[in-house]
Amino acid sequence: MQLIKGGVCAPRGFMAGACHCGIRKSQSKSDLAIIYSKTKAKTAAVYTTNRVKADCIFVTKEHLEDHQAQAIICNSGNANACAPYGRENAEREALACAQYLGIASEDVIVASTGVIGQELAIQCIEQGVSKIELQEDGSNLAAQAIMTTDTRSKDCAVRFEIDGIPCHIGGICKGSGMIHPNMGTMLAFITCDVSIDAHLLQKALVENTKRTFNRVTVDGDTSTNDMCVVMANGMARNKPIVSEDEAYVAFKEALKTVMENLAIQIASDGEGASRLLSVTVYEAETEAQAESLAKSICSSSLFKAAMFGSDANWGRVLCAMGYSGVDFDISKVDISFASQYGKIQVCSQGRGLDFDEKMAKKVLSADAVQVLVSLGQKDQVVTCWGCDLTYDYVKINGDYRT
Amino acid sequence: MQLIKGGVCAPRGFMAGACHCGIRKSQSKSDLAIIYSKTKAKTAAVYTTNRVKADCIFVTKEHLEDHQAQAIICNSGNANACAPYGRENAEREALACAQYLGIASEDVIVASTGVIGQELAIQCIEQGVSKIELQEDGSNLAAQAIMTTDTRSKDCAVRFEIDGIPCHIGGICKGSGMIHPNMGTMLAFITCDVSIDAHLLQKALVENTKRTFNRVTVDGDTSTNDMCVVMANGMARNKPIVSEDEAYVAFKEALKTVMENLAIQIASDGEGASRLLSVTVYEAETEAQAESLAKSICSSSLFKAAMFGSDANWGRVLCAMGYSGVDFDISKVDISFASQYGKIQVCSQGRGLDFDEKMAKKVLSADAVQVLVSLGQKDQVVTCWGCDLTYDYVKINGDYRT
Repeated sequence: MQLIKGGVCAPRGFMAGACHCGIRKSQSKSDLAIIYSKTKAKTAAVYTTNRVKADCIFVTKEHLEDHQAQAIICNSGNANACAPYGRENAEREALACAQYLGIASEDVIVASTGVIGQELAIQCIEQGVSKIELQEDGSNLAAQAIMTTDTRSKDCAVRFEIDGIPCHIGGICKGSGMIHPNMGTMLAFITCDVSIDAHLLQKALVENTKRTFNRVTVDGDTSTNDMCVVMANGMARNKPIVSEDEAYVAFKEALKTVMENLAIQIASDGEGASRLLSVTVYEAETEAQAESLAKSICSSSLFKAAMFGSDANWGRVLCAMGYSGVDFDISKVDISFASQYGKIQVCSQGRGLDFDEKMAKKVLSADAVQVLVSLGQKDQVVTCWGCDLTYDYVKINGDYRT
Repeated sequence: MQLIKGGVCAPRGFMAGACHCGIRKSQSKSDLAIIYSKTKAKTAAVYTTNRVKADCIFVTKEHLEDHQAQAIICNSGNANACAPYGRENAEREALACAQYLGIASEDVIVASTGVIGQELAIQCIEQGVSKIELQEDGSNLAAQAIMTTDTRSKDCAVRFEIDGIPCHIGGICKGSGMIHPNMGTMLAFITCDVSIDAHLLQKALVENTKRTFNRVTVDGDTSTNDMCVVMANGMARNKPIVSEDEAYVAFKEALKTVMENLAIQIASDGEGASRLLSVTVYEAETEAQAESLAKSICSSSLFKAAMFGSDANWGRVLCAMGYSGVDFDISKVDISFASQYGKIQVCSQGRGLDFDEKMAKKVLSADAVQVLVSLGQKDQVVTCWGCDLTYDYVKINGDYRT
């Protein structure tokens, strides 16, 4: 398996494009994207667990009842959630895309991201859709158009083989705020040219989501619009994957690579983030235990603020473990911080060590910081990803709507 | 019942004092407090639910096995949690207080607050304790000595009657960071001169804690050192309360008034807070449902940051309700904001209203802002308290230890 360029257009038969249709005021910011497959694709999806769901989620769920789709349309600048005419406008967005591409409305996935509760300017989308020129290398155009407070567009693609036949998986995503474990917690659109049974595609997506996107947290808020979609159009012409055989395992692993890479990009570009935090809990008794502890640490505002200040306040790591709700033996806990500048242990067997504060500050000043927590029990390991809590998070969210 | 001055010294027979013993570097900041009852008092307590507990919690629990105490010693500047010699130092702190006052060590409650994981300078306490002059009006000295990042000392006292006999309840507390529902989530020391059975005292404390301190959130972090203690020395000479009669109800109500008042002071002085938020969920089906929804709103970083910016981003209110994990009918939800500057409805039946943005900004610019959420179901009402998320929260916690 190797990382390649091309994002969602890396797999055979996919095109993408975007335009500024007018939902956003700034002309320089595109706000409408389409991803298109030349043939109908088996399609799997996971959605937000928030009880309050945007109408595009309901429309997409209905359109995917047959596990097939041929295009994704996504607007930024307005979430079309809790908004007047929400359902009607989500359907009109799908229809506009379908008519432009000459496909059935039921084969269109609709996604929206942006402010909640305001009416979607559907006329902008209906009039703007024809401005989109689909391109064989248009992945980055789409990736830019779905950004909200993201500072960087996010994509990833891999090439791997099934029975000697080259296959490709590519993805784009947007993250930033409202990022928390439990569901996609963002928008991610993944394409592949693999031929695979729809139920196995869904299974691989669900299992990988648990270990990738659901292990990222930015601020503990789960959005109303989250969605992760995988389209598989079969154009690689591999022998169709219809059981959990070696080819399925290879596919699932390649898909996980793309998803994990995108997940880490989301954490690293979390709203206002100045650094990526990866928290690894190891020597755990069970995966569930390690995951709960790692998520609790990654979600602690106090810990995240300390990381912003490069302050080796490991007491907050232990404290966050303590209120996670899971059992562990405090007297066996070791804690270290690591980065490109070195590694420093700060806690041994649940008690503080005398450590070199200057060295710790240096380690924690890197753009990517690891927190390593050993439970001294068995051999389970889980890593979760997050970011620090900064002035900019407060600034961005103190006046998001204007 | 009337509010009076005097804090923990308002009830008969209680004295308090404080000194700078040297745990904190700044000479101008006192760091050691004692609250003393002239006679042994029936004593009840609730503690942090964090699995990682400071050693003072364990020592206090043991000392309260007989439900009696005569003094509280509390240091700030060091939590004595996960620290070398933690257990030994907590015991030595109790002993130093006992020897100074000429009482048994088992009648001393020990509390600590401050940084986690560093060794407590126990010699400072042992040598400093004799510098404390207990005073009949020393409540504010103690209230100041237990502050950490609090910007204001916090106290409250009430006078009420049992069978025509005047009784008094007074309290001091500290809050600021690491404040979240589930347990005291801070330090609160409450005194009263009521004569009451120890088990009824405990019962009143536990039930009131659920509806007061446990409805305050600052940052979602639950500390290792939280403790709320009530001492009742019986010096009011009321007929002892030994059953859940009218006198018990009057006592419990008066105690709740003090606890709620202290709780709101904690929310209002949350770390970095610029305004107090009170979130009321009404017309709910059950109290539990209303409480979960109100807490979820109050805990949302996105909502808190919007309140800092006086941004009427009500979508974040609905979003936080959606991921709270409890059921409600979105199509019946109404949302309004209110303050001294007026009231403005922003959402009706789950959909956004066209509202006057200028007026909303004005309403949200007040020091105390109310969020009113109607579920349109039955008649249950719950209010939770919190504060906004500000630059100062990040600043304070970005470098807390230095």
